[in-house]
Amino acid sequence: MNQPVAEPLGSTARTRLRRLPEKAATDRAALHAVLDAGLVAHVAVTDSSGPNGAAQPYILPVAYARDGERVLFHGSTGSRLFRGLAEGAPTCLTVTLLDGLVVARSAFESSMQYRGAMVLGSCRMVPEGEKERALELITEHLMPGRWKELRAPKRKELAATVVLALPLTEASVKISDGGPTDDPDDLDSPVWAGVVPLHEVYCDPVPAADLAPGIDVPASVRTWRR
Amino acid sequence: MNQPVAEPLGSTARTRLRRLPEKAATDRAALHAVLDAGLVAHVAVTDSSGPNGAAQPYILPVAYARDGERVLFHGSTGSRLFRGLAEGAPTCLTVTLLDGLVVARSAFESSMQYRGAMVLGSCRMVPEGEKERALELITEHLMPGRWKELRAPKRKELAATVVLALPLTEASVKISDGGPTDDPDDLDSPVWAGVVPLHEVYCDPVPAADLAPGIDVPASVRTWRR
Repeated sequence: MNQPVAEPLGSTARTRLRRLPEKAATDRAALHAVLDAGLVAHVAVTDSSGPNGAAQPYILPVAYARDGERVLFHGSTGSRLFRGLAEGAPTCLTVTLLDGLVVARSAFESSMQYRGAMVLGSCRMVPEGEKERALELITEHLMPGRWKELRAPKRKELAATVVLALPLTEASVKISDGGPTDDPDDLDSPVWAGVVPLHEVYCDPVPAADLAPGIDVPASVRTWRR
Repeated sequence: MNQPVAEPLGSTARTRLRRLPEKAATDRAALHAVLDAGLVAHVAVTDSSGPNGAAQPYILPVAYARDGERVLFHGSTGSRLFRGLAEGAPTCLTVTLLDGLVVARSAFESSMQYRGAMVLGSCRMVPEGEKERALELITEHLMPGRWKELRAPKRKELAATVVLALPLTEASVKISDGGPTDDPDDLDSPVWAGVVPLHEVYCDPVPAADLAPGIDVPASVRTWRR
């Protein structure tokens, strides 16, 4: 598929980290790693069609996949906000991974360990001929190994789905993986400080109520670990 | 603190669920439950100060807390986007909780179990005299029981923090907690279908590198479970 060329993550005025710039990771590998590790992205789109013309932003959670130097995500052809995105409205896509609570000796220094990616830009619609491959990538990102266990999409299913592609040309990555950095005045206090890591885990698969007897949990599902 | 009056969740043109409306939960208790269960919210703000005047949305992940019929979240006084929010720019705040993968017999019907809250509106700045209480609520939401183990915030810490309040007057809740609803044509296929639940868990606390010996994990941290 047609893809933007990979370049080092340039820092533009819009993606330069003003807050806590020491947490900025500027290499493209870090951006890819965060995008590859997430399950849900949040996508913003602004609607200025309201009665007072004010620019109202909306945030949509989406399933997605990274495809080289772009992010693919899908929605319904019936969604007004998706139509705005398909028409090239400026957007912001974020993936936030919460890795732990940073328990400091003061509320002010207490925070979170996280990895966050932000991509700015405009989407283009993935053309009909590339849609099935894009849906395979999105499905495989969320459910690795599943695509080949399933029938091919029906024509009407493809027609009901919009797939959008957002290039990774303007992006930032922020990674906070340290422990508490307390006020020096607090270091002698008898208060505990540290990190409580958070981890997302898969639980045992639950068969559908209408699953026929004798169908085992498939190879794909058995490999999913977080 | 000054709070909006609690009313049933009204459905406005902007919060009416057009997609999958059967997943809409319209009662305020459901909204509160989703907001109370999340750890991170995503807040959108639109910036129209760019060179071409296009309305560029940004998404900021924030720590937050529900305080009755409003959501409180904080940021730095130095953040340009937070200043926009403090000035009343229209915003959207979402909390998305991913509860599982819905593994259907087709890619088209495969999806996620989730709980999602969306709040539209404009923030107001929490006044100086109410800021400490608001920070207590945000800290306690993320780290229950921790506030009373910590010293009070310093004056300069309060001064460096903006706390914003977004009323829960225009909001929607979407809850997807069922199994796969497959195409009737697929029900005879020999393909497994079901749900793989996802669960976020706390791991064992890790003491800070600079923690003095003999300080035990505190009562607050020992109670945290997800």
